[in-house]
Amino acid sequence: MADSSDLLSLCKRRGFVWPSYEIYGGVAGMFDYGPLGCVLKNNIVETWRSIYRNGEGFIEIDSETVNPVQVFKASGHVDEFSDLITYCKECKEPFRADHLAKGLHDNPDVLSPKQLEDLFAEKNVKCPECGGELGPVEEFNLMFKTNIGPGSARVGFLRPETAQGIFVNYLNLYRYNREKLPLGVIQTGRGYRNEIAPRQGMIRMREFNMMEVELFVDPADKDWVRFPNIENEMMTLVPDDGKTITISVGDSVKKGIIANRVLAYFVHATQRLLLALGIDREKLRFRQHLSDEMAHYAADCWDAEVLLSYGWTEITGIADRGCWDLSRHAEFSGSDMTHFKRFDEPKEVDMDVVKAKHKALGPKFKGSAKDIAAAIESKCPQDIKDGVLTITVNNETMTLNDEFFEIVRIKDKISGERVIPHVIEPSYGLDRIFYSILEHAYSYDEKEDYVTLRLRPNVAPIKVGVFPLMDKDGLDVLASSLYEDLHRNGIGSYYDASGAIGRRYARMDEVGTPWCITVDYQSIEEGPDKGTVTIRERDTKEQKRIKIKDVRKTIEDMLSVNI
Amino acid sequence: MADSSDLLSLCKRRGFVWPSYEIYGGVAGMFDYGPLGCVLKNNIVETWRSIYRNGEGFIEIDSETVNPVQVFKASGHVDEFSDLITYCKECKEPFRADHLAKGLHDNPDVLSPKQLEDLFAEKNVKCPECGGELGPVEEFNLMFKTNIGPGSARVGFLRPETAQGIFVNYLNLYRYNREKLPLGVIQTGRGYRNEIAPRQGMIRMREFNMMEVELFVDPADKDWVRFPNIENEMMTLVPDDGKTITISVGDSVKKGIIANRVLAYFVHATQRLLLALGIDREKLRFRQHLSDEMAHYAADCWDAEVLLSYGWTEITGIADRGCWDLSRHAEFSGSDMTHFKRFDEPKEVDMDVVKAKHKALGPKFKGSAKDIAAAIESKCPQDIKDGVLTITVNNETMTLNDEFFEIVRIKDKISGERVIPHVIEPSYGLDRIFYSILEHAYSYDEKEDYVTLRLRPNVAPIKVGVFPLMDKDGLDVLASSLYEDLHRNGIGSYYDASGAIGRRYARMDEVGTPWCITVDYQSIEEGPDKGTVTIRERDTKEQKRIKIKDVRKTIEDMLSVNI
Repeated sequence: MADSSDLLSLCKRRGFVWPSYEIYGGVAGMFDYGPLGCVLKNNIVETWRSIYRNGEGFIEIDSETVNPVQVFKASGHVDEFSDLITYCKECKEPFRADHLAKGLHDNPDVLSPKQLEDLFAEKNVKCPECGGELGPVEEFNLMFKTNIGPGSARVGFLRPETAQGIFVNYLNLYRYNREKLPLGVIQTGRGYRNEIAPRQGMIRMREFNMMEVELFVDPADKDWVRFPNIENEMMTLVPDDGKTITISVGDSVKKGIIANRVLAYFVHATQRLLLALGIDREKLRFRQHLSDEMAHYAADCWDAEVLLSYGWTEITGIADRGCWDLSRHAEFSGSDMTHFKRFDEPKEVDMDVVKAKHKALGPKFKGSAKDIAAAIESKCPQDIKDGVLTITVNNETMTLNDEFFEIVRIKDKISGERVIPHVIEPSYGLDRIFYSILEHAYSYDEKEDYVTLRLRPNVAPIKVGVFPLMDKDGLDVLASSLYEDLHRNGIGSYYDASGAIGRRYARMDEVGTPWCITVDYQSIEEGPDKGTVTIRERDTKEQKRIKIKDVRKTIEDMLSVNI
Repeated sequence: MADSSDLLSLCKRRGFVWPSYEIYGGVAGMFDYGPLGCVLKNNIVETWRSIYRNGEGFIEIDSETVNPVQVFKASGHVDEFSDLITYCKECKEPFRADHLAKGLHDNPDVLSPKQLEDLFAEKNVKCPECGGELGPVEEFNLMFKTNIGPGSARVGFLRPETAQGIFVNYLNLYRYNREKLPLGVIQTGRGYRNEIAPRQGMIRMREFNMMEVELFVDPADKDWVRFPNIENEMMTLVPDDGKTITISVGDSVKKGIIANRVLAYFVHATQRLLLALGIDREKLRFRQHLSDEMAHYAADCWDAEVLLSYGWTEITGIADRGCWDLSRHAEFSGSDMTHFKRFDEPKEVDMDVVKAKHKALGPKFKGSAKDIAAAIESKCPQDIKDGVLTITVNNETMTLNDEFFEIVRIKDKISGERVIPHVIEPSYGLDRIFYSILEHAYSYDEKEDYVTLRLRPNVAPIKVGVFPLMDKDGLDVLASSLYEDLHRNGIGSYYDASGAIGRRYARMDEVGTPWCITVDYQSIEEGPDKGTVTIRERDTKEQKRIKIKDVRKTIEDMLSVNI
């Protein structure tokens, strides 16, 4: 297993990833992608796109990262996206309260602020930095806050996920898709989480990268057209009973382990993607959320976990989120986000609907009565809990009793029905996937003190190292022109003329370059048409000679096989 | 000329760009890229990469968008990145003071807050919204502000440009490049500018996208290896005398119009990029900054301007920024950002250097004396202005007189010299380029009431529309499989089986799709091997028949010619 500090030191030394703002003392939880990391990261994104955009026909958007507060009121992040914090009364250092409780309680995550305060008092927990007394335990919202425009009238937040940008654009997307379901939308970009005290390198970052997929489906049709193609493929699952099994995609649904076929299809699509990126199959599993771990609205949720030096680590979540996201934005924005499902033939039905009592609303709510009535009638009878109905109008949440509404049975001839689409969400942590690929590719030969990154060619940042055996006698000219031909044509290449040839191979092996080409005296002697060069393969270290004029085609062919 | 509101309405209707957060009432100056816009934007980025990364061998990084305050202290943005603002005393609405002064003064940009207040009093300017009295004119910093981590101890800003991420990583980049110059680095990503009152659609956005290039060069070598390849190419320039000329790149340098060959090369590289993206050559010019418009440290600066419905609009700036950026970060961070230029033979030289007077510094500055001495000795005699030296130590700026330093002439045998690299910066406004491409491609036939976007195939979001003539009789099956073969192989395609064929062509013309393929009865009758389809070209509307099995290859060939 790669040691994370060895790997991060390689990342830094060779230009994969650098801790941000080092010349100014650094900022915890922030990393910059260097020249090799940037290409590797882009290669991951392109592989994800090739599966979702090219393969599934999903569409991609790119929405803004600064969001007005309303978005996260609706999503729940303003109220619920927080960690519990306590400050040392002496040195003012902030701590995550649940971290301080580790070892003192079986599951510190479930403790309330009061319970944590009591626990700290009981166990006499002090500030780990200075031994001072700890202050009260409070909620700390993890969104970065700012103001949009001058003054503080308009609060904005940096998005904690890219998903909301898709939900708030749902109506635009639905129209783009000509009001049809299913509708698959992808987005990649920055997410932000203002961690109290980030640790674990690239696993927990304050500013990170995501690749998210939101698939909107008819709630009554949780199948997927290409499911039959993959139903016999095997996956390693850890269902909520905790017992690891290896099972086919088809059986996982038939046996009721994964909630439905569309969710199972995208759990498997995630496996395909991660394996294509070079995640080790033996170190990959899908773990089902326990019922107390899952959001209350989710029907089912699976984490792709990989085995890293940090232990099993979540790098992707795949959830059936039901109608939660669109319902919330429909409610908070007052927009109709339903899909109209036309029946084959119109039906006559008895229907219970919620009707507003306009005569009672008018006198009580005056100018708002119309909006309130509309909000009431957007509800269905099942929304009435204990005789009261909760609605949100113009950002204000109110609870109404049956003075203001009634349930009416109507007979209706209907040509279809309006449903709120359900959301299937595979959400990929790009930086974690990036880091996991490197850990799984890292190979250290202790005897030779030699590092090889066994990256798959499709993700490797440099595809070809090009070397003149000697930096003279025209070998350099020929090697340079070979390098230029490759690099200009989009095959990321690296020209290196300095040091012993073994040292140059080693430099390329250490950054995962799959092939190295060396121009030697024979290349020149054979003449322009018949000239050959050696091509060396990273993992086998085997070399063979190929014609100079076939080099680009040879590499292109090997890359197309490998994607 | 395309009307900007017609174009923005097309953009919205067809899924290029949507005003952000419309369901919540919108936020001025923010736009989301829809499915077609997202692909077009990515295509622009890829074309930029193909010029800079593949063509020039530059390296790419991706740095964080939230930056600690130190970065923008050094860059000058904390002190100088602001607009003048005034609030209405009655309705509290904020206004850009220079906008209110338009028409009342020749050049409102140069007025001080006091001068603007006097002007408003003299001309009796009131609030344009409510007629109320205006408050004082103040500076409003345009960076979005936030806090990193809990509390407000660590102030952060959203970056106003991607460039600083490259400068703060300079030492990492320089080491990656094995301490050699030139060193070309590119970065694309978000920039933020908290406009007081954004107008002009996509031209002035609060959250925008940039593509920046920072080329670090030896100050004594402002040439470029590939300059001879392009020196006869013609460009349209507006030098600072205001007279438009058409001149070759070579002559522009020879005649002293553009400061040096490397800058001229990248002015021309910008022209190449913009033309490759579809900017109309007749509506493109390069305008030199006037001396009072240019940053004080810049040696020369040119804006690429395109003619839009808004008038001539800057979409790119290409500047020789001298040693400003690295000098500032070297000073504020205390890091050595020099490049060592080795001479062919060691030289003996007389040299004036600034030496710290340690005996005076010690008693006065105690513990800080050592840092101050180092800061003093990092200066050169030319930095002494009016007998005093200004240094910044641990974020504090201080001015010292010659009690604390002296100029000493030393004799030294030197094997080389340390220079601070100069920066050549082509900085591209991605959203503005995106919008300009659309305006220049927009073509409206009034007689037919018909819109065609004449996008170049390399940037067009959809390359091929695929239609079955009728949605039955197996035409649909054949057309679907053709669509899938193209789309899965990365050729963005759109399947459309609904409506008259002319209507389907029109939908594709309106979004700039260069080719449409129609499967008709003949395609089926000819049999699997010999079957043909029609391919229609957008601009000529010409159709010809090609073999089904040649479709992908035909499109690929046309695309490779067009890039």
